Amino acid sequence: MHNPPIRIALAGLGTVGGGALTILRRQSALIAERCGRPIEVVAISARNQIKAQTLPLENARWFDDPLQLATLDIDVIVEAIGGSEGPARLLVEAALAQGKSVVTANKALIAHHGIHLANLAEQSGAILAFEAAVAGGIPIIKGLRDGLAANHFRRVAGILNGTCNYILSTMQATGKPFVEVLSEAQALGYAEADPSFDIDGIDTAHKTAILASLAFGVAPSLENMHIEGIRHIQTRDMQFARELGYGIKLLGLAEQTTDGIAQRVHPCLVPLTSPLANVHDAYNAIVVEGDAVGKVFFEGRGAGAGPTGSSVVADIMDIARGTTYKPFTLPVNALKPHSPISMEALAYAYYLRLAVQDKPGVLADITGTFRDHGISVHSLLQPSHAENEAAQIVLTTHATTEKAVSVALKTLSTQGFMVEAPQLIRIEA
Amino acid sequence: MHNPPIRIALAGLGTVGGGALTILRRQSALIAERCGRPIEVVAISARNQIKAQTLPLENARWFDDPLQLATLDIDVIVEAIGGSEGPARLLVEAALAQGKSVVTANKALIAHHGIHLANLAEQSGAILAFEAAVAGGIPIIKGLRDGLAANHFRRVAGILNGTCNYILSTMQATGKPFVEVLSEAQALGYAEADPSFDIDGIDTAHKTAILASLAFGVAPSLENMHIEGIRHIQTRDMQFARELGYGIKLLGLAEQTTDGIAQRVHPCLVPLTSPLANVHDAYNAIVVEGDAVGKVFFEGRGAGAGPTGSSVVADIMDIARGTTYKPFTLPVNALKPHSPISMEALAYAYYLRLAVQDKPGVLADITGTFRDHGISVHSLLQPSHAENEAAQIVLTTHATTEKAVSVALKTLSTQGFMVEAPQLIRIEA
Repeated sequence: MHNPPIRIALAGLGTVGGGALTILRRQSALIAERCGRPIEVVAISARNQIKAQTLPLENARWFDDPLQLATLDIDVIVEAIGGSEGPARLLVEAALAQGKSVVTANKALIAHHGIHLANLAEQSGAILAFEAAVAGGIPIIKGLRDGLAANHFRRVAGILNGTCNYILSTMQATGKPFVEVLSEAQALGYAEADPSFDIDGIDTAHKTAILASLAFGVAPSLENMHIEGIRHIQTRDMQFARELGYGIKLLGLAEQTTDGIAQRVHPCLVPLTSPLANVHDAYNAIVVEGDAVGKVFFEGRGAGAGPTGSSVVADIMDIARGTTYKPFTLPVNALKPHSPISMEALAYAYYLRLAVQDKPGVLADITGTFRDHGISVHSLLQPSHAENEAAQIVLTTHATTEKAVSVALKTLSTQGFMVEAPQLIRIEA
Repeated sequence: MHNPPIRIALAGLGTVGGGALTILRRQSALIAERCGRPIEVVAISARNQIKAQTLPLENARWFDDPLQLATLDIDVIVEAIGGSEGPARLLVEAALAQGKSVVTANKALIAHHGIHLANLAEQSGAILAFEAAVAGGIPIIKGLRDGLAANHFRRVAGILNGTCNYILSTMQATGKPFVEVLSEAQALGYAEADPSFDIDGIDTAHKTAILASLAFGVAPSLENMHIEGIRHIQTRDMQFARELGYGIKLLGLAEQTTDGIAQRVHPCLVPLTSPLANVHDAYNAIVVEGDAVGKVFFEGRGAGAGPTGSSVVADIMDIARGTTYKPFTLPVNALKPHSPISMEALAYAYYLRLAVQDKPGVLADITGTFRDHGISVHSLLQPSHAENEAAQIVLTTHATTEKAVSVALKTLSTQGFMVEAPQLIRIEA
């Protein structure tokens, strides 16, 4: 091993930073052999020096202020602080401006400021790497950038948030309602005390914006993204979906449409026979559709010290080997802006559940309304119900525009027999 | 686009070569944008100039002798001739010796001569790339080399031959016997007229040797590899396996054992709940187990012009971007030789099917023999059978050594009630 070491400064010792540090220490010989030079962690900064005592800091210098790391004579800064603003952003900006490469797992930072940071990296010749920002240990960023780079992509669809997938899988397996499963997940540490970021789809949206940029050559952006979480999914939707041959998953989707790249995050019915339906617990998975390769499916752990550390260290190893690339594959000036695409123009198949008064003629009124709006019904369930409950009518439609469905549901809501707001879940093939 | 083009010579216009050429022509602008420079196919050689007329040769020069390509002023040779000897080997050797990079889908060549070729590449500084050699369009080589490079791997297990998976899936779905499904597959073009290479596990063995080398830092080698095909799998094994909660798949496996890296190719019972059991038709899939990342699962098309072309072009794009790496990740002198590992020393759980005379005491004799050899029975099926057929006794065992099982079966075979040779299939978790 005659090549000089690559010197790392690590900011943050939470799950991601601690995971990366542990791998770098445990596997130092193997890693050095695989990338042709040793990787040395020479400086560390973290909020909590007490917790740090359980980690193999060895001879790394300690800094209380993470921003000091950018002033050191090092090659790569690992930003594992988190958050789209504050010290994480300041540190990454300072490092890139000085030509120091940055490895981060920070999806919020990349989704919000990716273009600005990619510009800084391009100007200084630094690498900005973020494999761990999407789907934890699954090498999907490298997959889109390198392994599948010969493809014109049609669609990328992923289960990108382990908390949501854990909640939905558990609802499905146990029949327990959302609120109960959420509190259990919080007690187990699978969901945050303030779970909004996960369960309202924001985290999935950040990751979707990053995947969309890499797959379609657009700037990462949350603008014009339809974002819907999982709070409104009921156990009965799980049951009806299963009767119809589907599971329910929160997906982040980016796809080529005639009007541009559509980005959306929402619960989906996915066929039980599809690999996505069989992704359980806190696992993540992505289906990539390319014109040459067809569908490629990736599945693995989306969070945790080992998986995110695995991706952070892989990014450092790329840099140690001298691999160079643009953060979003294309140069910043070649990334296209997003065209505003209205969900109303897009066409899907739908699952609709209508809670209605149990009286003669309601079903005829509903199907008549759908006919009037050109919506073709694919299947219909009218399960029996208890005396004191509303009747449930469950329909799936053939592909139709979101606009037609939304107008039809509005029309139905004026007809007096609707007991609750209708449930609408899109169906993905 | 101010960077000079990278110049390619293409040898072979079959599925792989034709697929790569089609992608390079159709997608030239996108590919140039993604790798920062155009890719130009400047020379082509193929056996059949007639068939070539359906492909977009454009202004590439035609050569009847593929070896002439190595003498041209070009950057990369794409070897899509096939075969471990003859013109494919001569062309690759000549190119690498002169410092010209080589992209190939030729698993036989890499499995048999990988070390020799990697030596040539190291000496001349050329790249030797073979993403398309394993699992077609799935970027598993790059996954092991780059995306998961921070892991100490425990095991790699894959469905690596689409023909075998098609035959086994079809046997499972239709209940038709092996020979009938094989002829249908031949009629459909899914299996060769001489199917031995696929169904006897040789092709899977080549791919397993390559994966083992990348995952475990050993020289690619077929020595000491246990190789078993699928000819002996019967429809009744499919049925019994399913009753026990398993599917049957031909797997290529490489795993770390205390004695070294065990490599083996054989049919396996895989739990119906595992992703591998749900890989159907001609799809390929790989499970990689790393100490940091846990299990990562990849699935996609393992053959065909689009998927193999996708991987070949991705390799060319890596070279166009200036990415450098060793063919087997480690330098040749760091690759470890294989320790001879006897299958007999390895421990698995087994599925055993014994065709026996239907007379009292046979089951007691069998279970007694297993007890005498320290084999613990996990489950037992004794299905009813027609008068004119042998009785079938199906057992699964807890993990036990191959040696214990083989001695026990030999003992049973001397006891006179065995009607056929016993069926033995290993169970993989």
